Amino acid sequence: MKRTSARLADGREIIYFDALDSAPDRRIEDTRDLGPVSTASEIRYDAALDEWVAIASHRQGRTHLPPTDECPLCPSRGDHRTEVPADDYDVVVFENRFPSFSSGAVPLDPAPVQHELFARRPGVGRCEVVCFTSDHDSPISTLPPEHVRLVVEAWVDRTCELSLLPHVEQVFCFENRGEEIGVTLGHPHGQIYAYPFVTPRTRRMLDSARLHRERTWRNLFADLLAAELADGSRIVATSEHWVAFVPAAARWPVEVHVYPRRQVPDLPALHEAERDDFARIYLEVLGAMDNLYGLPLPYISAWHQAPVRIDRELAYLHLEVFSVKRAANKLKYLAGSESGMGVFINDVTPEQAAQALRAAAKPA
Amino acid sequence: MKRTSARLADGREIIYFDALDSAPDRRIEDTRDLGPVSTASEIRYDAALDEWVAIASHRQGRTHLPPTDECPLCPSRGDHRTEVPADDYDVVVFENRFPSFSSGAVPLDPAPVQHELFARRPGVGRCEVVCFTSDHDSPISTLPPEHVRLVVEAWVDRTCELSLLPHVEQVFCFENRGEEIGVTLGHPHGQIYAYPFVTPRTRRMLDSARLHRERTWRNLFADLLAAELADGSRIVATSEHWVAFVPAAARWPVEVHVYPRRQVPDLPALHEAERDDFARIYLEVLGAMDNLYGLPLPYISAWHQAPVRIDRELAYLHLEVFSVKRAANKLKYLAGSESGMGVFINDVTPEQAAQALRAAAKPA
Repeated sequence: MKRTSARLADGREIIYFDALDSAPDRRIEDTRDLGPVSTASEIRYDAALDEWVAIASHRQGRTHLPPTDECPLCPSRGDHRTEVPADDYDVVVFENRFPSFSSGAVPLDPAPVQHELFARRPGVGRCEVVCFTSDHDSPISTLPPEHVRLVVEAWVDRTCELSLLPHVEQVFCFENRGEEIGVTLGHPHGQIYAYPFVTPRTRRMLDSARLHRERTWRNLFADLLAAELADGSRIVATSEHWVAFVPAAARWPVEVHVYPRRQVPDLPALHEAERDDFARIYLEVLGAMDNLYGLPLPYISAWHQAPVRIDRELAYLHLEVFSVKRAANKLKYLAGSESGMGVFINDVTPEQAAQALRAAAKPA
Repeated sequence: MKRTSARLADGREIIYFDALDSAPDRRIEDTRDLGPVSTASEIRYDAALDEWVAIASHRQGRTHLPPTDECPLCPSRGDHRTEVPADDYDVVVFENRFPSFSSGAVPLDPAPVQHELFARRPGVGRCEVVCFTSDHDSPISTLPPEHVRLVVEAWVDRTCELSLLPHVEQVFCFENRGEEIGVTLGHPHGQIYAYPFVTPRTRRMLDSARLHRERTWRNLFADLLAAELADGSRIVATSEHWVAFVPAAARWPVEVHVYPRRQVPDLPALHEAERDDFARIYLEVLGAMDNLYGLPLPYISAWHQAPVRIDRELAYLHLEVFSVKRAANKLKYLAGSESGMGVFINDVTPEQAAQALRAAAKPA
């Protein structure tokens, strides 16, 4: 593998990950005339829910579903200058031009906080875009395992580097796919958020894990995985190093969790064999999802990694993939019960979902 | 006010709330041939997040955007038999035919729980529909204050009655409006969920309030309200008994919280004058929201009431109204950061949102 770091016209970092050490030199000058990156984001503390919320008003103007021939994530070819100056790439990562978190963040309003209940901080951290392939029309579910393996390597690299940034407490690698969930660019890509706090869902999971450990001396997620394997009714796929299942209390009509059989805190802790094997089981899971309704499924794919500094021994790396599609032509909306009270109503039983996904995973 | 209780053909309860004691007798027989109500819902415990999730697979077949002349929430007139047997009504409430929670709930699967980590219970509770008016084309934002006042009375009545049901721990009155958030019926209506547990968001808010009380001897929500009034920059509207403001850490591009000036646990605890006054400020808030982009705003309107049994002195009744519309033609989606990690990214500053709503509240 060959790793090449360069800078875009406005100073943002771009990193190429090429499978072959013999890949061409990717350090092509970015000749675009770009204004400075806007980074006026801040985080505000919600004292009622004990959570941080990011306020990033500069993002309202971000690019929205451009035509394919103006795709900013394709390589730069001919007169078409994109976010990627090179004329080809395998996998490439660069800093988001419309970041929710960035190292240059300053408070929107320099006035001091008026009241102790209204804590505010600059939105420090980093937001990156991960282009999975230079081919605009090849979603990650259609890439060969060796190529997905290269994406894993990019995630590992970014997790290591972003974990070293000041104030970063958690690194979140994820993919949003499909206009149904608001994806604004069609090119196959994911994102990485380096947050300046441990996220609310992770905090809650770690709190549960802490209680479980105090009661049992065991790891909660390892016990959940063992229980799913023992039960068997919600298993979607297994491999030497990984298990994919629909959780017993799934919130979404399609929801698959993918756990390594060995407890590790994050992606960098995975062995080579585990990384290789992940590419295979992930393609199997995504293939089943696309077969489920016979159309590309909109989904969110979210890596749950341990926080950078705390509770690392309580955490258990895993991937959660879920979709808002509850039928070929119906979406699951987060309405009053979900958004107002946090109570999910799932119209599909997890056992039925797992059965359908197992059937869809098999070649027709 | 006149209150009339009756039964639908399948045994579900229906309750009419008429403004005038002289209203016609609403006890009209429901002549439809209805099968039994399906109630096969259950709740499952998510041990990782320490939350209950409802599994209600019978709801997949529920009614989806019928044409207006088949609206099941209009009064029954001529050959058009609806969920409301009477030929007119002011406000009417009835049990949902596709409930997520119901008194008849039995576990989907009679097998005992296989593992202590997979706790399951029947989805007991109750789900009701509240028709705000018999006029299909008059959203609540266009009703006269006296009529909204009658809706308040219906919420109070239902909160009292549902709180007495076995296992009910929290009563949630809410309205989902707009196809953008998945509303399947166009008739102006809200819903009431009587949950068999204290909901996750309420639990977190009460936990915050408990800590705040231990530290300060004061109520968290009363302090937040006082701080918003002292700051002033996010106030949208005030009246003798109520204050409407955009919270300092708003999650949604349009989000307004409406608090009574006096700390009360729930709707039944409001005085007559507070109930009257609410109708006026609510219409002012909804009017501002509709004026904001010059089109009826899709929104979720959610009453936060104290749990039925516990922590009632920590709670503070209030309404949270929020919208997914971040511009006239753009929606806020809950993607990876929100759905995966629980971190909201708001593209609009709360101060800008409050300013826009204040301007929109004024007659043009």
